[in-house]
Amino acid sequence: MGFSLMRNQKFMPAIKHLLIISIAINAGLLLKLLHDGHEWAVEPGPEPNGKNEVRVVKNVFPEPKPANGVQNLSRATDQYIHLDRGDPTMYEIYWKQMGDKTTLVLSGWQSISYFSDTENQCWFLEPGFANAVTRLHNLVGNAQTRDYHIVVGTGSTQLFQAALYALCPPNAPEPMSIVCASPFYSSYPLIIDCLKSGLYKWKGDASKFNKDEPYIELVTSPNNPDGSIRRAVVNGSGGILVHDLAYYWPQYTPISFQADHDIMLFTVSKCTGHAGIRIGWALVKDKEVAKKMTKFIEISSIGVSKDSQLRAAKILDVIADTYEQTQKFDKATPFFHYGFNEMAKRWRQLRSAVSKGQTFSLPDFPVEKCNFSGQTFGTQPAFAWLKCEKAVDDCESFLRKHKILTRGGTQFGSSKKYVRISLISHKEEYDEFIQRLSLISSMDTP
Amino acid sequence: MGFSLMRNQKFMPAIKHLLIISIAINAGLLLKLLHDGHEWAVEPGPEPNGKNEVRVVKNVFPEPKPANGVQNLSRATDQYIHLDRGDPTMYEIYWKQMGDKTTLVLSGWQSISYFSDTENQCWFLEPGFANAVTRLHNLVGNAQTRDYHIVVGTGSTQLFQAALYALCPPNAPEPMSIVCASPFYSSYPLIIDCLKSGLYKWKGDASKFNKDEPYIELVTSPNNPDGSIRRAVVNGSGGILVHDLAYYWPQYTPISFQADHDIMLFTVSKCTGHAGIRIGWALVKDKEVAKKMTKFIEISSIGVSKDSQLRAAKILDVIADTYEQTQKFDKATPFFHYGFNEMAKRWRQLRSAVSKGQTFSLPDFPVEKCNFSGQTFGTQPAFAWLKCEKAVDDCESFLRKHKILTRGGTQFGSSKKYVRISLISHKEEYDEFIQRLSLISSMDTP
Repeated sequence: MGFSLMRNQKFMPAIKHLLIISIAINAGLLLKLLHDGHEWAVEPGPEPNGKNEVRVVKNVFPEPKPANGVQNLSRATDQYIHLDRGDPTMYEIYWKQMGDKTTLVLSGWQSISYFSDTENQCWFLEPGFANAVTRLHNLVGNAQTRDYHIVVGTGSTQLFQAALYALCPPNAPEPMSIVCASPFYSSYPLIIDCLKSGLYKWKGDASKFNKDEPYIELVTSPNNPDGSIRRAVVNGSGGILVHDLAYYWPQYTPISFQADHDIMLFTVSKCTGHAGIRIGWALVKDKEVAKKMTKFIEISSIGVSKDSQLRAAKILDVIADTYEQTQKFDKATPFFHYGFNEMAKRWRQLRSAVSKGQTFSLPDFPVEKCNFSGQTFGTQPAFAWLKCEKAVDDCESFLRKHKILTRGGTQFGSSKKYVRISLISHKEEYDEFIQRLSLISSMDTP
Repeated sequence: MGFSLMRNQKFMPAIKHLLIISIAINAGLLLKLLHDGHEWAVEPGPEPNGKNEVRVVKNVFPEPKPANGVQNLSRATDQYIHLDRGDPTMYEIYWKQMGDKTTLVLSGWQSISYFSDTENQCWFLEPGFANAVTRLHNLVGNAQTRDYHIVVGTGSTQLFQAALYALCPPNAPEPMSIVCASPFYSSYPLIIDCLKSGLYKWKGDASKFNKDEPYIELVTSPNNPDGSIRRAVVNGSGGILVHDLAYYWPQYTPISFQADHDIMLFTVSKCTGHAGIRIGWALVKDKEVAKKMTKFIEISSIGVSKDSQLRAAKILDVIADTYEQTQKFDKATPFFHYGFNEMAKRWRQLRSAVSKGQTFSLPDFPVEKCNFSGQTFGTQPAFAWLKCEKAVDDCESFLRKHKILTRGGTQFGSSKKYVRISLISHKEEYDEFIQRLSLISSMDTP
């Protein structure tokens, strides 16, 4: 449809060069117009070989206002640090470094029709997005796609509800029990019980579920909040599994096998960092389940933003390109390598801060070989599941006194001794957090 | 943030001119690259004075594949015409005529954070979109915005559910009754009963509701499917009203008053034609209701696509610009005038076809003065509520035999004698429909 300059394969070479020049003029003018003094900045950037090296990065775009009003934290330690949400702003710097490689141009006449692909049972799925999803899974090797149906959703949150709708019989005498081993993602109970549905009901910790009745078990792996690698825990008959694999990407955990579960949920937010794009996808084995999930999304929002699907396709394709067409990227760090190194650094900083005293502890993770990168490492989750030791009973309140906002363990079906801390926020915010935590930890007198 | 060339107010004139030249080079190259043989095409296009005149329109973009596989209809009368959905593809030609005026450029690092505006209680509402919504309502005069809270949603469909969630008490002994006068929008019962919510329950035709208990009445005006101008019909106490004003725009109906209801729902789909963008908004008087609606959208999809909000903002702003900054648009027809003339033409065609015999009838609409355009006219709805007269009892099946797909009256809580027909599809599709309907009508022997 000609919506994207970068993806059209039909360009004649001469015109292509003219276009590149023209785009360069635009970019240059934009740069000038934005009145940004920081044309060159030194940023720590990892190299593909896995070593962290300081390198010069052209900072062509102005720094956006950080979320939650946290600004100049290093000079303003009296401000709150918001690590209670998994806002993946860590990735912003990477996408800035990629310059116009992921820029998308949308014409005014696009996104008119509700329909994206009337040949597909998921009629609102953009073919380009479906292709990009398949391509990325094939590259990373984290999930089977052959013989799977792709359903797109407004984030994996909508797909999660679509799965429940599809799996629960409409006329059962009792709502289906939905369980998940504790600690579980704090939003599951909220989403499930929000409308007091007669189709399903949150029944809490899967490890305590022993009723002889149909149930759905949610398996989140790596787990949110604690990063553990999980399998189903209920030993009952009649159970259906929904796998939330939002974090099963090589920056967070070794890709040790190609997942082939019945229903697997993924989200752009935690894969590429584009949370504001609100795009997720499900890989679904059974055609009828995929059909019912599609029906739910049709009823609840008449499909999913085309614009966001087009953007997500572009971004996922560029990630694959950084591995498959390296010559196009002028030695740029491939995406997952960047993410991996950044997460590794943040976990080193965190473990170092925690080890300064006896106030806190962190979980350990088994080490495995990653089939994607070839490296052997332990999971380095997007969240830290921090435990307050000794006399600190309410870890969330304790950290709040130090102006560090986290999410308390009780929200995850666990104890107040724990908090979940986002590790994927802006660098400045994270650095300030590490400074404060080091200080608290080394005081050792909570 | 510099995402849009057209909206940045800080450009220095000289650089602005360079940019325009540069964009023109891009547009020109695109044109050349798209290999579209139809560089100039004659399209009927109305003028601002309200008269229909044939004028030359530069067709700079290739014709996209029509939705539902309907191609070359005038040469393929054996194909089905899909008028069962209100897919607003009619507007595509207008937005093509506007060329790059509504083109949006999105950089790869945009839409990272979940947050759009942490100062706003609707934290995922893009400020530019909120401004554009307010500006457009102020221009058209169809709704009050002062002292209203704006909540953005994934189409008005999600906002409708958010309103129900916000208005129904969480611990009531019985689900709240939801009613709407028949004929009602066919999706209301599906959305409401989809999850068998304990908060609310569909109770059908509002005119038959006489229980002495709390209820929510949905008032759709102009009404989908029949185009009638509506007010609440239930005469009970404890009723709450939700106004669906998706079609209260001057291309469909005279803007006879500035609506100031408690909750008013709007959608980009039916205002500008961008259905695939999935953006709607609610104007909400009560702060606590707006807060709860926001909470529902947070729980059900963690906000709304930023990309789509940015595009919607751009499009709404350009519509306002076509009225307020006419010099920028080189005599282009302002948007609502285009829509008005197109709807008027389609209704003339339809009434003419129906009048060829006694097989069908259509509703009449009262004539009013439009405060926006100054014109006096009757509602010309996006849907026709067509009645099959005489021996035809099942109008949907009857038309299906002629390969015209419509939505049958029973889905709207009405009789099989009626069907709803979309009047806002592609011109080619609509013209073919009119041809077939004229033929059926003039045969007069169903």
